[in-house]
Amino acid sequence: MVTDPIADFLTRIRNANQVCRDCVEIPASNMKQSMAEILKAEGYIKHYEYVKDGKQGILRIYMKYGPNRQKVLSGLKRISKPGLRVYVKKDEVPRVLGGLGVAVMSTSKGLMTDKKARQEGLGGEVVCYIW
Amino acid sequence: MVTDPIADFLTRIRNANQVCRDCVEIPASNMKQSMAEILKAEGYIKHYEYVKDGKQGILRIYMKYGPNRQKVLSGLKRISKPGLRVYVKKDEVPRVLGGLGVAVMSTSKGLMTDKKARQEGLGGEVVCYIW
Repeated sequence: MVTDPIADFLTRIRNANQVCRDCVEIPASNMKQSMAEILKAEGYIKHYEYVKDGKQGILRIYMKYGPNRQKVLSGLKRISKPGLRVYVKKDEVPRVLGGLGVAVMSTSKGLMTDKKARQEGLGGEVVCYIW
Repeated sequence: MVTDPIADFLTRIRNANQVCRDCVEIPASNMKQSMAEILKAEGYIKHYEYVKDGKQGILRIYMKYGPNRQKVLSGLKRISKPGLRVYVKKDEVPRVLGGLGVAVMSTSKGLMTDKKARQEGLGGEVVCYIW
């Protein structure tokens, strides 16, 4: 039983990235699938796939590196946590490294990047930073 | 003639770090020496020294890496620029990656980290982010 599945998701990707693994498998959920979709859209992973396993299913994340296994993904940090939720108003949506990274926001219209949330004029929960 | 000596300083360190060089030499100035002092105090470089050369002098920065040449310094980003200065009030001092990194602030009491500026209740110019 994992108390914070999103922290677990981030940790598994962080660890795979650190040792330059080609892919990593993570128990699936709708929210983790949305996270993977954002990682892909923002160019931090190659792609991902959902693998049926008779239970909740598995997300297989294909990691991305530059020439000579250079890191494309530098870091992932959980911001809102089960013990301390972080919510922001629409005009407080954070910027990560002055726009170099991405803040993943959980809004009333689903998971999206800080940029999208600003465009849509939405606040919400600050799930994590990616850079 | 370098139009932005601080951007040049950051770029030289970024480049040295990327190719894992042991040290890098940069034309000295008081501000760059203060920057080097902060980099050292925050654990991003091993140390630095001032080398006389009959002109403005040289700063020799000794880079820092973990085991297996793992990066200790992940990134440096110029925020305020000669063409677009960025100033903040004391209650707007930015946090870098939720405290994981450092914002270097130029204040009325000299160059300092965002943490120190918050303690001293000072605003100022946001020189750069380091993480």
